[in-house]
Amino acid sequence: MFDQQIYTERRNRLRAKMASGIILIPGNNESPLNYSDNTYHFRQDSTFLYLFGLDIPGLFGVIDANSGNDTLFGNDNSIDDIIWSGVKPSIKELAASVGVKNALPFADLFVKLGNSQFHFLPPYRSDIKLLLEKLLGLPTVHLAKHASIDLIHALVAMRSVKDEFEIAEIEVACETGYKMHVAAMKMAKPGVMEQEIAGTIEGIALAYGGGTSFPTILTQNGQTLHNHSHSFQLEKGRLMIVDAGAESNGHYASDFTRTIPVGGKFSQKQLDIYNIVLKANNTATALIKPGETYLSIHLKIAEVITTELKELGLMKGDVKEAVANGAHALFMPHGLGHMMGLDVHDMENYGQVYVGYDDEIRPIDQFGTANLRLGRRLQKGFVITNEPGIYFIPALIEKWYNEKTNHAFINFDQVRKYFDFGGVRLEDDILVTDSGARILGKRIPINPEEVGALQL
Amino acid sequence: MFDQQIYTERRNRLRAKMASGIILIPGNNESPLNYSDNTYHFRQDSTFLYLFGLDIPGLFGVIDANSGNDTLFGNDNSIDDIIWSGVKPSIKELAASVGVKNALPFADLFVKLGNSQFHFLPPYRSDIKLLLEKLLGLPTVHLAKHASIDLIHALVAMRSVKDEFEIAEIEVACETGYKMHVAAMKMAKPGVMEQEIAGTIEGIALAYGGGTSFPTILTQNGQTLHNHSHSFQLEKGRLMIVDAGAESNGHYASDFTRTIPVGGKFSQKQLDIYNIVLKANNTATALIKPGETYLSIHLKIAEVITTELKELGLMKGDVKEAVANGAHALFMPHGLGHMMGLDVHDMENYGQVYVGYDDEIRPIDQFGTANLRLGRRLQKGFVITNEPGIYFIPALIEKWYNEKTNHAFINFDQVRKYFDFGGVRLEDDILVTDSGARILGKRIPINPEEVGALQL
Repeated sequence: MFDQQIYTERRNRLRAKMASGIILIPGNNESPLNYSDNTYHFRQDSTFLYLFGLDIPGLFGVIDANSGNDTLFGNDNSIDDIIWSGVKPSIKELAASVGVKNALPFADLFVKLGNSQFHFLPPYRSDIKLLLEKLLGLPTVHLAKHASIDLIHALVAMRSVKDEFEIAEIEVACETGYKMHVAAMKMAKPGVMEQEIAGTIEGIALAYGGGTSFPTILTQNGQTLHNHSHSFQLEKGRLMIVDAGAESNGHYASDFTRTIPVGGKFSQKQLDIYNIVLKANNTATALIKPGETYLSIHLKIAEVITTELKELGLMKGDVKEAVANGAHALFMPHGLGHMMGLDVHDMENYGQVYVGYDDEIRPIDQFGTANLRLGRRLQKGFVITNEPGIYFIPALIEKWYNEKTNHAFINFDQVRKYFDFGGVRLEDDILVTDSGARILGKRIPINPEEVGALQL
Repeated sequence: MFDQQIYTERRNRLRAKMASGIILIPGNNESPLNYSDNTYHFRQDSTFLYLFGLDIPGLFGVIDANSGNDTLFGNDNSIDDIIWSGVKPSIKELAASVGVKNALPFADLFVKLGNSQFHFLPPYRSDIKLLLEKLLGLPTVHLAKHASIDLIHALVAMRSVKDEFEIAEIEVACETGYKMHVAAMKMAKPGVMEQEIAGTIEGIALAYGGGTSFPTILTQNGQTLHNHSHSFQLEKGRLMIVDAGAESNGHYASDFTRTIPVGGKFSQKQLDIYNIVLKANNTATALIKPGETYLSIHLKIAEVITTELKELGLMKGDVKEAVANGAHALFMPHGLGHMMGLDVHDMENYGQVYVGYDDEIRPIDQFGTANLRLGRRLQKGFVITNEPGIYFIPALIEKWYNEKTNHAFINFDQVRKYFDFGGVRLEDDILVTDSGARILGKRIPINPEEVGALQL
């Protein structure tokens, strides 16, 4: 938790942007596994953390832009709570610790709000949907369409630019991420179960921070982009993709990807593809600076990949034309990166179009680029990921072949020789600085010699 | 997953017990952390696992006790699913793999059910509440009271007695639990952060199984029974309680508690209390056998603890009278144990009164014993925990003192000398056998010399 002044100042800035109405910021509740009292590790809502800083379930924050008052709703502990969960500060003390003057029992939420213009965000958890339904008299299925676009815009403007304290938290998350990835590299030997490595690095995230920032992707089947299965035994000669990050204890994220040859030695075929992705990654970092749009950098990286795959004989034709037709997306069907902060995909619960796009830069509805989560002009203080990749997805390749998609740019005969290849992805976390980009944290080994050497 | 025959046989047994009606068994969905697509590790519903065996989100099982048909509802993968999540069997193949003949798209659930008598369990996740509301036209707040008591009784009868395959799974979970606890014992040195140990052992649970079976309790403030905070640095001379268990990959649980002197050496004061709890634990294991009620064993253990605390000068008066008045509950305000299986508190989502009690043995409404989750007569094949403890909870002690509770049995002046003690709990997992009890798994070090020696 930061200094209480930070939260007061953030709420005041938000109030000033909104001018009027009552802003509802529900905190998260415990989330049940297999029965009500067996719960996952508690994860507070990120907007609540940003504005109220309290990392405890069962709270509700109200920011009144009419009167200028803030109120925290929640319950004090009973003696049973103390026996089972320990002594905790009172709701009044909790409120005071983040500069909130008013503190009331949770049940008062249903009698104190009155009639007003309410601003709320689209809810993403079903228990919060049920709470808002009860509070506002709106059926759960209609809540999203009544969410406040003004509130979303105001919060996106504030949260997109990270201050020095937030950047310091992200660097802590990066430090844990470094430990996780180096541990995974050392363990990537033939015969080891994917699950064993995934569990070990998730343990590191829990030991040194708030756990992982998203479910770890760790697989020798890297052709599946978000593969959450860890059920295979590593085989010599395969490529293991590890896409994993940690949260700091303050819940800021890191998010890194590395690709490791099982047993420590890349084949020439693997190295050819690996070096293209590495070149794409390094080129992107060199291009990132305030004023550039991330869409234009994404498309330049698509050109780098297309040029190099042409060189290898997997693509053909005019590079710019191939990219304009989305032919590169056969190999990289995802975007170059996304915002990162309190969420690994920062503010994704607000709606990607509000976070990654604006009136100037609109989303592009083309396979592949449609998955680019961030397209708009970069500003100093943005924290973003840079994560190019090349994959060989048999089902997608056959689909394009059969549907005659982009045959002018793809050498399908050559591509079919890579059906057992898997994929390569390389991802760093980047701070947009005054004049360029800075890789956050100590850079995780990325040159092929370094990566292979760790297993020996 | 077990052999498909097991699931078919279970569904048929359940059908026979229910005689008529349509039994609705919703599978769990992904559970969001901070936005819809960032999810916790998926945990399937235990009843769904027991009857349908499939460990995948987005499924719904229907057992028709009228027609004798079973149906699995769920959706096949799209090409996007394949790109992002990989190739998966079709819904028809999934159904067939667990002996279910009918497979239909999820949306058909809303048109195929028709009017009938529906049996469902009390839902514990809000998304499932919303699904049942839509399906049955019952408001979410009324679902619990319409849950089927017949279905609960039928499933409790089936799931309480574990077969050999289930016991083998629990032993796998115990093996991982052993690794977790021994790792924690070795790490319990002054200066180490609680979080570092908790994270490390949760990593072991993830590396060798399906993660933890419940959120790890690991604290030098053991006076708080379910302390989920791990924010302290271990201090020499404190006692660290570790209450932690794993799931097997098939999602059967283990659940163990050990208490470790930070730095490896018990003080005499600590040893006095520790040895009482150890005696209580060993006595309980010796008493467990088919035909005994767990309530009677719980009360006998209360007598053991009272007798020994009298010896130490902390309690006074007649032992049986003290226990009848619940005086022991100042020190052990919880029950001796609970059922364990696919859930660490097995079937707790059905309602504790149905799982732990019956027409013969009714719950007791006295502070402490009211928290006993299992009171009824033991049967061969039950798997239960044996977890006596002694705690010194300052807030509770002062409350009893001020409210004149059980002053005839407590020497408050002596008890106050233990305000900084914390607590001791020792827990094993027990299989009720033909004629007695068997501790499941290799017993985790429990004798004080062994426990202390691990840190040296």
